[in-house]
Amino acid sequence: MKTQLEQNANGKVATGFMLIKTIEKKIATNNSAYLNLVLSDKGGEISAKLWNYSPEKHGEYVTGDIIKVQGTIEEFKGSPQFRVERIRPKMGTDEVTMDDLVASAPFSSKDMLAEIRKTIEGFQNPNIAKLVSYLVEKAGDGFLINSAALRMHHAMRGGLIYHTYSMMKAAKALCNVYPFLNSDLVLGGIIIHDLGKCKEIQFADTGLAVEYTPKGNMTGHLVGGAIDIALAAKELNIDDECVTLLQHIVLSHHGIPEFGSPTPPMFPEAQVVSAIDKLDAELFEMLSAMSGVDVGSTTSKVWGLDRKLYRHSEDTEYRLNGED
Amino acid sequence: MKTQLEQNANGKVATGFMLIKTIEKKIATNNSAYLNLVLSDKGGEISAKLWNYSPEKHGEYVTGDIIKVQGTIEEFKGSPQFRVERIRPKMGTDEVTMDDLVASAPFSSKDMLAEIRKTIEGFQNPNIAKLVSYLVEKAGDGFLINSAALRMHHAMRGGLIYHTYSMMKAAKALCNVYPFLNSDLVLGGIIIHDLGKCKEIQFADTGLAVEYTPKGNMTGHLVGGAIDIALAAKELNIDDECVTLLQHIVLSHHGIPEFGSPTPPMFPEAQVVSAIDKLDAELFEMLSAMSGVDVGSTTSKVWGLDRKLYRHSEDTEYRLNGED
Amino acid sequence: MKTQLEQNANGKVATGFMLIKTIEKKIATNNSAYLNLVLSDKGGEISAKLWNYSPEKHGEYVTGDIIKVQGTIEEFKGSPQFRVERIRPKMGTDEVTMDDLVASAPFSSKDMLAEIRKTIEGFQNPNIAKLVSYLVEKAGDGFLINSAALRMHHAMRGGLIYHTYSMMKAAKALCNVYPFLNSDLVLGGIIIHDLGKCKEIQFADTGLAVEYTPKGNMTGHLVGGAIDIALAAKELNIDDECVTLLQHIVLSHHGIPEFGSPTPPMFPEAQVVSAIDKLDAELFEMLSAMSGVDVGSTTSKVWGLDRKLYRHSEDTEYRLNGED
Amino acid sequence: MKTQLEQNANGKVATGFMLIKTIEKKIATNNSAYLNLVLSDKGGEISAKLWNYSPEKHGEYVTGDIIKVQGTIEEFKGSPQFRVERIRPKMGTDEVTMDDLVASAPFSSKDMLAEIRKTIEGFQNPNIAKLVSYLVEKAGDGFLINSAALRMHHAMRGGLIYHTYSMMKAAKALCNVYPFLNSDLVLGGIIIHDLGKCKEIQFADTGLAVEYTPKGNMTGHLVGGAIDIALAAKELNIDDECVTLLQHIVLSHHGIPEFGSPTPPMFPEAQVVSAIDKLDAELFEMLSAMSGVDVGSTTSKVWGLDRKLYRHSEDTEYRLNGED
Amino acid sequence: MKTQLEQNANGKVATGFMLIKTIEKKIATNNSAYLNLVLSDKGGEISAKLWNYSPEKHGEYVTGDIIKVQGTIEEFKGSPQFRVERIRPKMGTDEVTMDDLVASAPFSSKDMLAEIRKTIEGFQNPNIAKLVSYLVEKAGDGFLINSAALRMHHAMRGGLIYHTYSMMKAAKALCNVYPFLNSDLVLGGIIIHDLGKCKEIQFADTGLAVEYTPKGNMTGHLVGGAIDIALAAKELNIDDECVTLLQHIVLSHHGIPEFGSPTPPMFPEAQVVSAIDKLDAELFEMLSAMSGVDVGSTTSKVWGLDRKLYRHSEDTEYRLNGED
Amino acid sequence: MKTQLEQNANGKVATGFMLIKTIEKKIATNNSAYLNLVLSDKGGEISAKLWNYSPEKHGEYVTGDIIKVQGTIEEFKGSPQFRVERIRPKMGTDEVTMDDLVASAPFSSKDMLAEIRKTIEGFQNPNIAKLVSYLVEKAGDGFLINSAALRMHHAMRGGLIYHTYSMMKAAKALCNVYPFLNSDLVLGGIIIHDLGKCKEIQFADTGLAVEYTPKGNMTGHLVGGAIDIALAAKELNIDDECVTLLQHIVLSHHGIPEFGSPTPPMFPEAQVVSAIDKLDAELFEMLSAMSGVDVGSTTSKVWGLDRKLYRHSEDTEYRLNGED
Repeated sequence: MKTQLEQNANGKVATGFMLIKTIEKKIATNNSAYLNLVLSDKGGEISAKLWNYSPEKHGEYVTGDIIKVQGTIEEFKGSPQFRVERIRPKMGTDEVTMDDLVASAPFSSKDMLAEIRKTIEGFQNPNIAKLVSYLVEKAGDGFLINSAALRMHHAMRGGLIYHTYSMMKAAKALCNVYPFLNSDLVLGGIIIHDLGKCKEIQFADTGLAVEYTPKGNMTGHLVGGAIDIALAAKELNIDDECVTLLQHIVLSHHGIPEFGSPTPPMFPEAQVVSAIDKLDAELFEMLSAMSGVDVGSTTSKVWGLDRKLYRHSEDTEYRLNGED
Repeated sequence: MKTQLEQNANGKVATGFMLIKTIEKKIATNNSAYLNLVLSDKGGEISAKLWNYSPEKHGEYVTGDIIKVQGTIEEFKGSPQFRVERIRPKMGTDEVTMDDLVASAPFSSKDMLAEIRKTIEGFQNPNIAKLVSYLVEKAGDGFLINSAALRMHHAMRGGLIYHTYSMMKAAKALCNVYPFLNSDLVLGGIIIHDLGKCKEIQFADTGLAVEYTPKGNMTGHLVGGAIDIALAAKELNIDDECVTLLQHIVLSHHGIPEFGSPTPPMFPEAQVVSAIDKLDAELFEMLSAMSGVDVGSTTSKVWGLDRKLYRHSEDTEYRLNGED
Repeated sequence: MKTQLEQNANGKVATGFMLIKTIEKKIATNNSAYLNLVLSDKGGEISAKLWNYSPEKHGEYVTGDIIKVQGTIEEFKGSPQFRVERIRPKMGTDEVTMDDLVASAPFSSKDMLAEIRKTIEGFQNPNIAKLVSYLVEKAGDGFLINSAALRMHHAMRGGLIYHTYSMMKAAKALCNVYPFLNSDLVLGGIIIHDLGKCKEIQFADTGLAVEYTPKGNMTGHLVGGAIDIALAAKELNIDDECVTLLQHIVLSHHGIPEFGSPTPPMFPEAQVVSAIDKLDAELFEMLSAMSGVDVGSTTSKVWGLDRKLYRHSEDTEYRLNGED
Repeated sequence: MKTQLEQNANGKVATGFMLIKTIEKKIATNNSAYLNLVLSDKGGEISAKLWNYSPEKHGEYVTGDIIKVQGTIEEFKGSPQFRVERIRPKMGTDEVTMDDLVASAPFSSKDMLAEIRKTIEGFQNPNIAKLVSYLVEKAGDGFLINSAALRMHHAMRGGLIYHTYSMMKAAKALCNVYPFLNSDLVLGGIIIHDLGKCKEIQFADTGLAVEYTPKGNMTGHLVGGAIDIALAAKELNIDDECVTLLQHIVLSHHGIPEFGSPTPPMFPEAQVVSAIDKLDAELFEMLSAMSGVDVGSTTSKVWGLDRKLYRHSEDTEYRLNGED
Repeated sequence: MKTQLEQNANGKVATGFMLIKTIEKKIATNNSAYLNLVLSDKGGEISAKLWNYSPEKHGEYVTGDIIKVQGTIEEFKGSPQFRVERIRPKMGTDEVTMDDLVASAPFSSKDMLAEIRKTIEGFQNPNIAKLVSYLVEKAGDGFLINSAALRMHHAMRGGLIYHTYSMMKAAKALCNVYPFLNSDLVLGGIIIHDLGKCKEIQFADTGLAVEYTPKGNMTGHLVGGAIDIALAAKELNIDDECVTLLQHIVLSHHGIPEFGSPTPPMFPEAQVVSAIDKLDAELFEMLSAMSGVDVGSTTSKVWGLDRKLYRHSEDTEYRLNGED
Repeated sequence: MKTQLEQNANGKVATGFMLIKTIEKKIATNNSAYLNLVLSDKGGEISAKLWNYSPEKHGEYVTGDIIKVQGTIEEFKGSPQFRVERIRPKMGTDEVTMDDLVASAPFSSKDMLAEIRKTIEGFQNPNIAKLVSYLVEKAGDGFLINSAALRMHHAMRGGLIYHTYSMMKAAKALCNVYPFLNSDLVLGGIIIHDLGKCKEIQFADTGLAVEYTPKGNMTGHLVGGAIDIALAAKELNIDDECVTLLQHIVLSHHGIPEFGSPTPPMFPEAQVVSAIDKLDAELFEMLSAMSGVDVGSTTSKVWGLDRKLYRHSEDTEYRLNGED
């Protein structure tokens, strides 16, 4: 996806507010200093260089700063690179906030959480309702702002709850088509299926994922999620088969061992959660990749899907779900 | 699944009408003749023996005959076996028909076809509508009565249209959740995705699959389906990208080469068709396997899913979709 | 391995005490009743038939009964089968106990437990000692009598503790060779690595494994073990990295996802536990398989090792470790 | 393979005619313009730079132009790079043509086509002859000039017919050794096995492959070839088993699903086509790779063969087949 | 393949000479003795029963005896079974020999060996000629009578030399098509490629393979063959690269590690030997499997090829190569 | 692992003696000459640049030279790069030797060899002792100085004997725990298991591996080792099963075909050698990788182990075994 800086460029010249994602001071072969940057806005990120950097002249910056930049968009090894010519920090009078610069879900996290809570209230099995509610509330703000992954699908502010919410809508639709499904298990399983990520991944204040935590590497969010269910059940004094069933849904939702599930889905509700999770993530990745090419064109191979995609002529406009 | 003969047995003694699926005359080690049979009714099939067979006394039979039998249910190597004690052919006064003895889809094939035709009429792209309609009408009665597979999912009279219809309902639900999908492609692709099976498999008059045809073995129903689209497009003079897109949906609906798809899905609509096909078949197989065990029990490993299943206590009653 | 009944047979005629493992009453084609049995003693098990069974004459029996039998050893489809000619229940005067009939580890479970407890007492990290001790004591008698597996390695009474004890000895030896290893983690990890099996598998009173429990199927003993560590840590108020490290050792001890580990070993101590577990099980299975062939002979393909084994001429006597 | 420019260089200085394969104008960090080029001749291709580019001084160029260059051969990241010092367009007096600059098969495409046509005329089965002849003539000039692949084997002008011709010669030899083979099927299958590539791949006027077409990506040349056989059969009113057999040979010629064949070869003639295709491609790739190293040396790992090759001392001279 | 006994049967009654492949005396449930036999002739083998066996009446027999039998062909579990009614040993006046009962190659082993020797004499590299000749002569009679495999391809008397000879003919044909190949290496490599089997497998006097030897299991015929080349080179004082090249051809002729080759082919001659070996074996197995079905029919899945085969209508008569 | 140059740097400025591993003279885009170097010392290696190189000013150098350098440590694409500012050759007065600059095993090769020889003397089977001793002595100095691998485990001067010695110590410990093992086979097998590497790999005078030899590529060190055992046995007139057993241990020590073993271990001693080889190499690689990160940190993915590692807080100090 292209940065808004590039989208709004005037020819090769571009101006705008951006977030500093990474910053390094380096020495060029001609012994002059320069800055190596990755800058991002809502549209995406771009690598940037500020040649002949002078702290006195340009100011000093750290990761997370909002800046205003002006410069030229060039190409380096087939990728765009921004040559910064002017730079200054965001000033009090600038009407720009973090929310304007970080890509985020198309719905309000609060609205999505409200619908999730309402769904839980509708559960017929009180133990499933209690367990799922406890885990959601315990996850706190992380559930509202974290992204769903380090890279790949739903890697945006609020991506975790957005992915959960989107799956919940798909699950409700399928529970109508397949009435033999126990919807408490399907919906409850979906709501908590990725909560283990809040501990598995370290998130920045922007909600974007930074890296796996040691604990995350050593147990994984599937097992971590199952453990949290066990601790919650103990806390809530629930000693019912639904504890094991929810643990199984969480453990099996990646489908096969090679993708991290110690066990494949053993009952229809677990199968449905796993199928919706896979489909929702794949559709998101497909849209992201295809938004970068024209109708009638083929993308390059998409990491994570391991294939090229084609944007066909039946596509009038690719929109993220929920957008008008 | 258990035969109705067994379900209605009085202790070990059972009486009922059945269909002869296979029949062989053999000589026992004591030199007496006996019949080796596989008998079936709506509930399933059972192997059977008629010891000391005498054509004069018992009558003569061939595959496909409807008979009335009485005898004892025994066990042979862990499976039930029916020892036939009395046998006679169906008589004119018996109120039993083929439909009473062959398992079939829970909806009328005509009703399902009507809804499929209505769906096609709603397509916005006239070429997709023309192509899909042409292929459905050309498939003729086979589409109405054939089963969907040799064994595994939807192996019942009308199974092919039932699987198609069930997928169509799921697809309509998901197209609402993911509005960026082109529903003509998703629904059109689903309606024709398995039509190649009509040529790939040889079906009995009952609609049950007998074996792959040589052509079926040599090209497969995915490639066969893509070829039929090409021939239809030529017939209908359609030279539009939608021809290739529908071919791609059919070719990619098994997802990966190891499962028979020469190419993975390259656009969201193809991905959705593939995901729904997999889920609908898996759910059907899960229900079939679980209907044979009690709540709280684990099945033996299910061929085709390559795992055991568990029938959990949240399941009050497993019903095929559509049944009340 | 051959039953002692066979080992002590006089030609084809054999007499001895045995345990009834499975029993079924059946009707032969000549309409007479017979018993289909699997009988076992310390040496192994054998399938058996009692033709023309009469409850009045032979008595009535259930699984788990100790009986005295006499009969002839025949062959059926390449395997030995015992034709029972005389049968009676164990009587008060018979000097035979369950222990005489069930294969068990070559060491006393109590002695092995004592050495395990002593090893825990020697730990330098008190939290590891507390956690491991808590889990061992909580496992109770199951740890003393259960077998280590449904089939394959250490499938004997006391097999679980025997496998654990044998690994512990190997680990102590290797910790001397590789002094950088933290022996508390290695030894603590080994002692608890398979405790999850006590819940994953249903055991008979004899300690032999019967089948996986639903919970065992749905979470697995690796994840189950990690959950128990979490609950124990909560109980003991331990909030230390060693909790995660022990969980990781348990989760990674099968090495790769295909063998059930959601994560591969990420530090040397976890690698060592995984390597010793694999080697100890393989050596046990090799010895079992090779004990059935003569020096200079090749076994048939061993299930679980997926290869044939060769008993070479450098082998004077294959003994289980610890046996003289 | 090395460009002739390099082969004929005088030390590091080289002069010659070349074809512009790609050209980009870029801005260096010192703000001066430069050209980023890939230049090719019969021997291969080389990346090139023209620093301080001035349209007035150097002229303006586009992809496909024939140019005369002079400059220095340097090394960049382990690969040769040509620093252009003088450049001018081909002039009327220059005795150089496209054929002099593009690598091509060692035989005349017309001669090879003549032999292919003669082979078809010799077929005993008139339907196979009609179908194969129709498909060859329909492919037209593409069959004469296209390369056989994007990269890897026979990636040269006329490579497609050269690969086909070479396989045909090998097939005739093997049909003599294995007289039970139906040579119409073997030879007919070979002649049409790769014709689908003409639609699957977009070719430049030079005959070199540029990229896969969307249709090529979405169906593949195996399925595309099978579809073309179906359309041809309809056109020619041939409704004979040979249609399915030829489709099967085309569909199965990659042997296994992982390499793109929806079905493995099911009769000896299909097996032979698949084996010869694989061998002819492998030998070509081996020769290409080995032509770059000296006798007694090992190549680096060859992409496409996934192994290193060794040029042994029994090799007096590696020649492409047909060359003297 | 069907026994000649069956081919020559008169209805279900059959009479003929056969070889006893295995023989066991058993006791039936009615306490009478019977013989369990596998009998073979040139056409194949059949399992057989002789009920109510009496040594006095029927005579006594061991494996390897030639007998004359008369009886009835029945079916047991889908396979033919021969119920022996009369049996007697071969008598002096019977004009039947071992050669009449054992399947063997269609050419004389002596003639094939003569052509192989003549081929070696034509080698240009004297060291290759010396090494190959030494190894052939050392293999002695085993090379003339042994079969090529335990089961699968060329499992017949003389099968080893027949497979070698057939490959040699194919190699000569391909060396003409690809003149860059060093034919000494290709032909020399083929002649010795399977000689290691003479040590790896234990053969019966009939030339049929019985089982792998311990040495065969522990090193394999590829490594065994490479070792024999090393020992021969030492014996003949040849210290030339051709020793390593021939070892490599032998080691790499199964192509990939999964099929037993520690290394893939690294030069064209090794590739060609591997390709011809695979093709010759596959064609043989295909013909064997297809000879059992009618034109227009599909075989069941062929072990070793892992697929079904189709006998098409272009096949007038499938003949083993060399047969008229 | 970090170079000592970096470890001893004063801020970014560093001075020290280093070994030239690779050296290339290049021309920069500004037409000035520069040197592209890889420099190494005991701690590891670093890439380096000397800009504006002048032979007159800086001197001339070749691979293998010991030099003294001064300069600045910068970063290039995420890896450290050394900008050389001053350079001179080692002079007579410099107290630095090759041993000071090349990483080597923590024990003296002579001491390790002495213990290996003593171990062989203790063998009970004289033939195993003779064979193993012959092969060790024949390997000569290569066994003392060669590294164990091209990259990955024990890639240091003396690495081969160090890996062998470390395995031998582990094996002695395990033979005590599993007394049924034949220790002559285990220890003899370990001592010779990697000797084939001396021929398979070309080593520099420093003992570091340079590349595989053609012979090494074409047969591999496992097969090469087995051949050397055969030749030794012939030389020593040993015709005993122990020859095949030792060959099998060498051939099977990589466990599975995918890792280069033509056969899996078929007896317990071969299994133990394979397990210890794998564990010793893995532990070495783990320590190497973890020595580069702080306690509490995760490494990046380790090539060869295909996973990240975690340095936990229970680790007070990671030491190579044998180091204090």
